[in-house]
Amino acid sequence: MIRKTRLFTPGPTPLLPAAQFAMAAADIHHRTAEFRALYTKVLSDLKTFVGTKNDVILLASSGTGAMEAAVSNLTSPGDRVLVLTAGKFGERWVSLAKAFGCDVDVVSAPYGQTFDLEEVRKALRIETRAVFMQATETSTGVRHCVQGVADVLKQSGKDAALVVDAITGLGTTHIDMDGWGVDVLIGGSQKAVMIPPGLSYLAVSNRAWELMEISLNPRYYFDLRKERKSAAKGESAYTPAVALIAALGAALDYIAAQADGDLAAGRAKLVENAETCAAMTRAAVEALELKLFAPEAPSAAATAVLPPAGMDSGVFVKELKNRFAAVITNGQGEMKGQIFRIAHLGFFDYMDTIALVGALEQVAYALKLPGFAFGKALVAAQNVFASRAADEAARNHCSCGRPVGHYALTSASLPAR
Amino acid sequence: MIRKTRLFTPGPTPLLPAAQFAMAAADIHHRTAEFRALYTKVLSDLKTFVGTKNDVILLASSGTGAMEAAVSNLTSPGDRVLVLTAGKFGERWVSLAKAFGCDVDVVSAPYGQTFDLEEVRKALRIETRAVFMQATETSTGVRHCVQGVADVLKQSGKDAALVVDAITGLGTTHIDMDGWGVDVLIGGSQKAVMIPPGLSYLAVSNRAWELMEISLNPRYYFDLRKERKSAAKGESAYTPAVALIAALGAALDYIAAQADGDLAAGRAKLVENAETCAAMTRAAVEALELKLFAPEAPSAAATAVLPPAGMDSGVFVKELKNRFAAVITNGQGEMKGQIFRIAHLGFFDYMDTIALVGALEQVAYALKLPGFAFGKALVAAQNVFASRAADEAARNHCSCGRPVGHYALTSASLPAR
Repeated sequence: MIRKTRLFTPGPTPLLPAAQFAMAAADIHHRTAEFRALYTKVLSDLKTFVGTKNDVILLASSGTGAMEAAVSNLTSPGDRVLVLTAGKFGERWVSLAKAFGCDVDVVSAPYGQTFDLEEVRKALRIETRAVFMQATETSTGVRHCVQGVADVLKQSGKDAALVVDAITGLGTTHIDMDGWGVDVLIGGSQKAVMIPPGLSYLAVSNRAWELMEISLNPRYYFDLRKERKSAAKGESAYTPAVALIAALGAALDYIAAQADGDLAAGRAKLVENAETCAAMTRAAVEALELKLFAPEAPSAAATAVLPPAGMDSGVFVKELKNRFAAVITNGQGEMKGQIFRIAHLGFFDYMDTIALVGALEQVAYALKLPGFAFGKALVAAQNVFASRAADEAARNHCSCGRPVGHYALTSASLPAR
Repeated sequence: MIRKTRLFTPGPTPLLPAAQFAMAAADIHHRTAEFRALYTKVLSDLKTFVGTKNDVILLASSGTGAMEAAVSNLTSPGDRVLVLTAGKFGERWVSLAKAFGCDVDVVSAPYGQTFDLEEVRKALRIETRAVFMQATETSTGVRHCVQGVADVLKQSGKDAALVVDAITGLGTTHIDMDGWGVDVLIGGSQKAVMIPPGLSYLAVSNRAWELMEISLNPRYYFDLRKERKSAAKGESAYTPAVALIAALGAALDYIAAQADGDLAAGRAKLVENAETCAAMTRAAVEALELKLFAPEAPSAAATAVLPPAGMDSGVFVKELKNRFAAVITNGQGEMKGQIFRIAHLGFFDYMDTIALVGALEQVAYALKLPGFAFGKALVAAQNVFASRAADEAARNHCSCGRPVGHYALTSASLPAR
């Protein structure tokens, strides 16, 4: 049978055709008026997409490069920083901060959970220079409460800057950088913006720009002040990834077009889209009598699923790949074999999601999962979609207790119809 | 919600990415060694794909151009021909034959059915120059029995040439041109070979080449003998559609790669693929309590479905388009509003098919179809896929009574497991 390769991975994600075409056509030099016009527009659109009045800096690097830039630009050796971690990407903050000589305090939560805000409050010190966290922890499928952490910082009266890796959070969860008081917000290209890897971006608050003036850590390629000066002239400090920037421009145009040209509204629709795909998937997985790895605070970027007891999660990865060319991901590091992850961020639609659920049923059937019957997972996903389609106003509350424009987080909490 | 446009139309069909890339890169002149190598390989591969030792002629035209070429090259004004028709494309043979001055006998069957072989036998005259038919009638979703007609011709002892429009038949139904004695077999590019419209091709038997020598109808652009002479030198008589030919080459490579490089086996796999998608769709439609328009001899190229009594079939076309960007087709001509059609020919896989069934359920739910419940159609499709996947040897018989390597034609006739 024909099998079309389809990525259901939390980066890279499926490519937007309009972005692919823009990338293929991007035969321009980066020190020309043509490029400056493109770059200026993309940086301006990125601000709207991020939802901030702050300047946005674009880098030719992976997301980890932007994470390093946040550490190296904001800290000095010997600075005290706090990392909130509950997975592989939280641990990356610890490694980065240590690599740049910081003294690192850590608030952690078990994999599959989010951390306790009260612990965050207690861990803050008067000398804490910066707090580093993820908006969504891609390795476990958890959504952290950025707004809750921002509030803890405000209420503490202490001076720490808040740095948020929103690489898989942007476009999958509501974030109000300026309203909440986030100082650095980080995104990546191969995520909800539907283009290949190779670009990262950082929105930087005025306070963070000021911090950079006293930071003593060495940086050159990732010197954000240098990039900001070049950006003001419509250029990048070093050779930019021109084709990817053209692709990003096309993708942002597409996202805006989803809401009649309103990019901010387009971002909100993108979040809703991921929430719908995620809610369909969670309902399907539970109908298969599989357990969600992060049932309390699930991210809409990716859903992490526990295999049946005694089964290696790689079996699902392999079967979906071999039989349907559907590419999902295993757990990372020591989570390998423990969970499998299905992505929803970016260019996914109903058809992708219901097809993946169908394929998952075929795999469950072949594996003879206990209690399996064809249709259980599909019907669960169908009901979620029908409910959400019929009542797009159905909302829920964030784990911090406030309505933040999130959709219902679990199928069980969907409104009765 | 994001909606990716997906064609479920019986031409154009979804494009193969490798063919798209080949098309985009096809920046070559057509009177060069580079083109001659490409053209010679594509013509040779087309012979294997068609499954014939006969020469294959490639034209820069739609399928109708190749149909005209068959008429204008094989007949003279005043010739008696027989057309077997049960739909719009059968009627096109009548129009073409009349346009070129033939005296046309017609054996017809009602839309949604195939013609009676006994009637064909009776309608053959000693002077019948040629018999024209479809392998599959795309306008009604019917598969005709080419082998049965070929046998009637052989047994008649009469001399008529058999011309088969297999534009949607190639790659969706088993055809043995040389074994059965078909004289002209016609294909098109925007069908099972997964590339855009713009090319047609004809496989031509020795008897048909001989007939051309005595045919008096005027032809110039579609003069097949001229094309054959040019093809022997690796060129086309007139400017070829270079990019489409490059795309076709890539598509034939892909089809071969599905069977470890064996293009003939790849074609058989393509037929099986269409049969699986069609069987899933038929089972789903029947589970929705909708009626198949061609239940007796369904084509695997496309499935034609009757809407509930009193409902315009356009409602399904519109809902699938508006809500899911899934493009299916309405009935043609006076069949508009009477049926809708879902295609399976070419680059469709399990994921496409199950997703379309899911979307069809969502439409049925919104339309409040009587007896509807989520999962009925999906479970029917899932069971068909699981049965066929588990037992790829499950076969059935053609409507002519012989085993021809077809898969089971209806879900009801699937072997019990």
